[in-house]
Amino acid sequence: MSAIDFKLIKTDSSSAARLGSLTTPHGKIDTPIFMPVGTHATVKAMTPEELTEVGAQIILANTYHLYMRPGHELVARMGGLHEFMHWQGPILTDSGGFQVFSLGELRKITEEGVKFQSHLDGSYHFISPETSMEIQAALGGDIIMCFDECPPYPADYAYIAKSMEMTSRWALRCKNVKKRADQALFGIVQGGMFSDLRERSALALQEIGFDGYALGGVSVGEEKELMHEVMGFSAPFLPVDKPRYVMGIGAPEDLIEGINAGFDMFDCVMPTRNARNGMVFTSFGRLNIKGARYAEDRLPIDPECGCYVCKNYSRAYLRHLFKSGEILASRLNTWHNLHYYLSLMAGARQAIAEDRFADFRRDFYAKRETM
Amino acid sequence: MSAIDFKLIKTDSSSAARLGSLTTPHGKIDTPIFMPVGTHATVKAMTPEELTEVGAQIILANTYHLYMRPGHELVARMGGLHEFMHWQGPILTDSGGFQVFSLGELRKITEEGVKFQSHLDGSYHFISPETSMEIQAALGGDIIMCFDECPPYPADYAYIAKSMEMTSRWALRCKNVKKRADQALFGIVQGGMFSDLRERSALALQEIGFDGYALGGVSVGEEKELMHEVMGFSAPFLPVDKPRYVMGIGAPEDLIEGINAGFDMFDCVMPTRNARNGMVFTSFGRLNIKGARYAEDRLPIDPECGCYVCKNYSRAYLRHLFKSGEILASRLNTWHNLHYYLSLMAGARQAIAEDRFADFRRDFYAKRETM
Ligand SMILES: [Zn+2]
Ligand SMILES: [Zn+2]
Repeated sequence: MSAIDFKLIKTDSSSAARLGSLTTPHGKIDTPIFMPVGTHATVKAMTPEELTEVGAQIILANTYHLYMRPGHELVARMGGLHEFMHWQGPILTDSGGFQVFSLGELRKITEEGVKFQSHLDGSYHFISPETSMEIQAALGGDIIMCFDECPPYPADYAYIAKSMEMTSRWALRCKNVKKRADQALFGIVQGGMFSDLRERSALALQEIGFDGYALGGVSVGEEKELMHEVMGFSAPFLPVDKPRYVMGIGAPEDLIEGINAGFDMFDCVMPTRNARNGMVFTSFGRLNIKGARYAEDRLPIDPECGCYVCKNYSRAYLRHLFKSGEILASRLNTWHNLHYYLSLMAGARQAIAEDRFADFRRDFYAKRETM
Repeated sequence: MSAIDFKLIKTDSSSAARLGSLTTPHGKIDTPIFMPVGTHATVKAMTPEELTEVGAQIILANTYHLYMRPGHELVARMGGLHEFMHWQGPILTDSGGFQVFSLGELRKITEEGVKFQSHLDGSYHFISPETSMEIQAALGGDIIMCFDECPPYPADYAYIAKSMEMTSRWALRCKNVKKRADQALFGIVQGGMFSDLRERSALALQEIGFDGYALGGVSVGEEKELMHEVMGFSAPFLPVDKPRYVMGIGAPEDLIEGINAGFDMFDCVMPTRNARNGMVFTSFGRLNIKGARYAEDRLPIDPECGCYVCKNYSRAYLRHLFKSGEILASRLNTWHNLHYYLSLMAGARQAIAEDRFADFRRDFYAKRETM
């Protein structure tokens, strides 16, 4: 009995795009969906109410960061992540693997797990598949992720194959120790940019059996076209009746290509991080609000956007806020960017429902060329 | 014909506290009132809608900062401050004097005005009573302030007297060049900690005639008791039928004492600045949210507070946000602090209306001693 239930509603006839509905212990999610990233149990600069207003249905929290601060046991004692951060919708927690592997020289990988030093105080820690499951159980997300090794790019075939096989063994260990019936566990497909390794990884995970399947090890430095290619050849290796998640992507065009390839879930810090750097997304391309050309521009970020920010603020004011280092700059840019991402997902869902995703995708690219 | 209309509704029988109503071109204000400070045309970390939700009726913007960035002429071309920052309620702009005088060695004062260097790029500028009026006209606030000299503390009698007399001459120059009929002009009483100088200043200003009167040159480094004393002996020098404003104060107890002395309007960065430093106000005293004692505290900031923050977030979560350097920490702490300040004002108004301000004031102090 799974903690979640995925219904595949429709598959687009001219692409692999899928329309679905994912029921979790904290509510239903329409797919394809983008998950805003709430690293420290907060989607930076947003309240939970605002997340709902921009169309967020599920958010992601980072296991590594919460393990480090304030500590997973504290979060558990405070009633779990939902209660702690005042977000009653679904939450997905990553495994901590990606952050730990990003530590570079501060970590050491063995079959048992990963020993690493804290980025905060240099203290030593050890995370294994078992401890990752324990930490994620304490955090209490609706969907938790297997602890995997995310290999660097580029890396040779032999290294990627060996790493992928350890990730499969780790996935089995995760499944074996997972306890909470109200949490769904996703396996993570590795295998680098190699189609045969991706297939072997996907098959090994399906043999174990998971509630959903994620594509890890993409957007690790490879070219955009290669990333899109990997999504394209990997999706068919995954079961049709389970949610498919591409981890850590991406730009709007990456989401469009991911949906086109048949993926259902996405997460990325791009809309929130770029917002804080003054980069905002529009249907006709990106716009850097710092630009001198916007100093007296009375238009909103995107004249076609119906969000709170575009209804009430000019580019001139947003530029002024950014130049003055004001918190409201981060808030309003983040608000608009998340609205843009989540509206793009809503548009894609509508297009799939009406069997015109190919047109939707073509229009998406055509419009950006008009800027 | 004044741009504003002040109605004195009631004076408390056991103190000098006044209940009033001030009509401005952008709406009515209940007095006594606290004005959140929006230095760069934004009350830090808050949207205008949130300001309304916490009970703000009028906000202050800083002429010096807006003159420097983005420039008053740009603000005028963007439709004025209200339009630029999406705040349709009343706005008061200060004269820029206080900030200019705070520049210390970077400025030179003459009878004509003040020459100073920019804190941003070192460029040279000159502000006189006439240019201050011009800048404030461009910004478009509902209430504008005379350009005054704010002398340092401590300073001797002769210096304060000379400075106060120049401030009076400057006030006349301000009145003479003020043009916009939709802006009210307030005079600023100076005179340091000397009662006779405060009286002379107040009389000189009344001879010129202003729409309201402010007490400047307090909270410049003097002891709290002395500040309260100055408010106490200065209020009676001011006309009964005009709004009375104490500039740049203060802590909750300073507002209570200011109201008790017969003042109607207050502004201070304390609730917003302290919030960003993790200091929050409650009815039982201040609380430093950084404290280790709050690490697992499931209570809200103030269990008796009905604000959005206290209804939804624990001290433990707020501490975590602060320790993690999250923008949401600044947002939520600011939200609560402004709610606290504005509720205190609402409570004071209610108490004056019911002729029990002395009790209200006594209870205010008694409750803080219970912490
Ligand atoms: Zn928008
Ligand atoms: Zn509160």
